[in-house]
Amino acid sequence: MQLFYDPDAAPPRHTLGEEESKHCVRVLRLGRGDTLHLTDGRGNLYRCCITDDDPKHCTVRIDDVQSGFGKLPYSLTMAVAPTKNTERFEWFLEKATEVGIDAIVPLGTEHSERRIFRTERGGKVITAAMKQSLKAYRPELRELTPFREEVLRPFPGQRFIAHCGAAHAPEGKAYLPQAVQAGTPVEIFIGPEGDFSPAEIDFALAHGFREITLGDQRLRTETAALTAVVMVSVANGPKQTN
Amino acid sequence: MQLFYDPDAAPPRHTLGEEESKHCVRVLRLGRGDTLHLTDGRGNLYRCCITDDDPKHCTVRIDDVQSGFGKLPYSLTMAVAPTKNTERFEWFLEKATEVGIDAIVPLGTEHSERRIFRTERGGKVITAAMKQSLKAYRPELRELTPFREEVLRPFPGQRFIAHCGAAHAPEGKAYLPQAVQAGTPVEIFIGPEGDFSPAEIDFALAHGFREITLGDQRLRTETAALTAVVMVSVANGPKQTN
Repeated sequence: MQLFYDPDAAPPRHTLGEEESKHCVRVLRLGRGDTLHLTDGRGNLYRCCITDDDPKHCTVRIDDVQSGFGKLPYSLTMAVAPTKNTERFEWFLEKATEVGIDAIVPLGTEHSERRIFRTERGGKVITAAMKQSLKAYRPELRELTPFREEVLRPFPGQRFIAHCGAAHAPEGKAYLPQAVQAGTPVEIFIGPEGDFSPAEIDFALAHGFREITLGDQRLRTETAALTAVVMVSVANGPKQTN
Repeated sequence: MQLFYDPDAAPPRHTLGEEESKHCVRVLRLGRGDTLHLTDGRGNLYRCCITDDDPKHCTVRIDDVQSGFGKLPYSLTMAVAPTKNTERFEWFLEKATEVGIDAIVPLGTEHSERRIFRTERGGKVITAAMKQSLKAYRPELRELTPFREEVLRPFPGQRFIAHCGAAHAPEGKAYLPQAVQAGTPVEIFIGPEGDFSPAEIDFALAHGFREITLGDQRLRTETAALTAVVMVSVANGPKQTN
């Protein structure tokens, strides 16, 4: 199955953008009457039939709609400080999209090495990963957000902050897979190479966050972030599946 | 803490190789009397004092030994078909080393795109990740091994095979995090882009393997492999930690 993406896709007909038209007609050599799949990135998977194989304006007829296609059984937002090395963060965007995530918030922190984040470039990585892994939901990539602004954003669910130092709160750190309540929306903060500052950790705790550990290993920022994504999927995982 | 690695490191003295000597003296500007840490990659962490800061033959005195430093509470071997794109597999080697793994077996399969594997290059990625994540155990990277040869290798523990198709065995697929028995050695087979062949799956099942699923998401080979590593760490994870 080959998946195409356009946020504006809707029945009964749709014309692919120039890039996707070229990919469809020139690269994949699909032609009139051939079937392709299209998504709007909001859960709708459209089965389409090519009615005009113009290599710049390929037009399709939408024959079938599946809504809520592959909807995650949980809701996860990751707020992660972009790494100094852009590739490492883009790698996280790709992998998190594959494993399953709703939103990524690039976080501006006291110890951040990177103060600028190119949302457009990161968005292309997410779109490519969404298409490659055949998803009909496109994770939302927010603009770079200052730490305190993101903490103060109302969030209806569990909020966690992962840091490397000793716990600040008397109850200590929770092990993420055991802290997640299945079905509850979760937001997880992952710090920069230099970790969160004590003041940032205390600010989060003062606003209802729980400190977590991902285990005893020392992980890079992007590795910690993906590990957390997998742990949340496990905490919401099937009991037994075929 | 700065970690150096030499499989031959042992008390009472050690001379770093030329590359590490240069890194130590020229890059980090460490000198006589300074402290550095050294590991043999077999669990020994040595605290050392520089006695000769020769930039080509830096010599240290081993003042303290911690054995079994950071030993994993589980044993995990991943047998993974190398990806067409070498970087993706090397990315897995780096991340698996960070999260925690004992051995990686590059697997030669019927549908493998890659028939040659450069163990030396992969080993460098593992060494760098081990030093960066301050580990005293260096994961073992085996030579490219044919699928059937690896299946027939005696393994004292649970063995799993992950594939994308429907289950071959009547009991169906187990969800990895629930299939792992904490404390038992585990080996997991992850297939190539084209998946394992039905014959390969049946051969593994005939030799005591259990089919597993990592969830409903469609994952790239290297993403599936790292997801499995995290899932095994969760299955062996702390009940509660500070």
